[in-house]
Amino acid sequence: MTLTFEDFPPGRLGTFGPRHVTREEMLAFAAEFDPQPMHLDEEAAKASMLQGLSGSGWHLCSIMMRMMFDGFIGRTASMGSPGVNEVRWLTPLRPDDNLMLEVDVTEARLSKSRPETGIVTLKGAARNAGGEVLCEMISPIIVRRREGRA
Amino acid sequence: MTLTFEDFPPGRLGTFGPRHVTREEMLAFAAEFDPQPMHLDEEAAKASMLQGLSGSGWHLCSIMMRMMFDGFIGRTASMGSPGVNEVRWLTPLRPDDNLMLEVDVTEARLSKSRPETGIVTLKGAARNAGGEVLCEMISPIIVRRREGRA
Repeated sequence: MTLTFEDFPPGRLGTFGPRHVTREEMLAFAAEFDPQPMHLDEEAAKASMLQGLSGSGWHLCSIMMRMMFDGFIGRTASMGSPGVNEVRWLTPLRPDDNLMLEVDVTEARLSKSRPETGIVTLKGAARNAGGEVLCEMISPIIVRRREGRA
Repeated sequence: MTLTFEDFPPGRLGTFGPRHVTREEMLAFAAEFDPQPMHLDEEAAKASMLQGLSGSGWHLCSIMMRMMFDGFIGRTASMGSPGVNEVRWLTPLRPDDNLMLEVDVTEARLSKSRPETGIVTLKGAARNAGGEVLCEMISPIIVRRREGRA
């Protein structure tokens, strides 16, 4: 069944994962999009602020997107997103991390400009197996309302 | 020469590009990270709010990261970023777009917790060949100060 605006009341939506992240995919993403030494070069990474090889923050965001897709967006009447309100990278993504993603609905309101839709604001927090939060992201999505509503 | 904090006064930093984006790379990114129909399926995309196949917003952000790397971050004493303050997706990324990226420094301040560094806040705006802004992003980076400064 397709999820609509009415299925996103404020509160915990769910916890999704685990998603295993390999060193190879971390290096491949970094080589394409973010070839900074701390994401590509083991020795330079050890000397960096992050004290070891770390994944690109954009890779982590993209993985969180995929975890949300697999968790619920793939079966949601979602029409897209106008952007992201905030991203915080708190703990480095490391090779072989197993990520879990907690998603909360922080706000759900009807759209004024598109009355057949609502704006659902999601807060996603990705944790590693040790429970550390790697990334927090706050992002609105536009979701269709149920057909035949009163 | 490596760019340091002192090389990032507020104002226009530069305009970078062009970066050509192919349909194939758009589809490949979407298949891996954001397989929503408007990013993968030509027919579904035509019926969507975005009225045609569009790239994932996360792909666009990742391309902007790479344009910043090639433009200046690759030769900057950058120590990473704590996150992103805001992302606005304003116009869809389309197959064969040629992107230019305008980068402004909106704020540059010394770090209190790490006196050898400063926080440079960047505003990036990606435009297509028609001049439309596809994405605006505001993001701080941590940059080392010049050695031997007074």
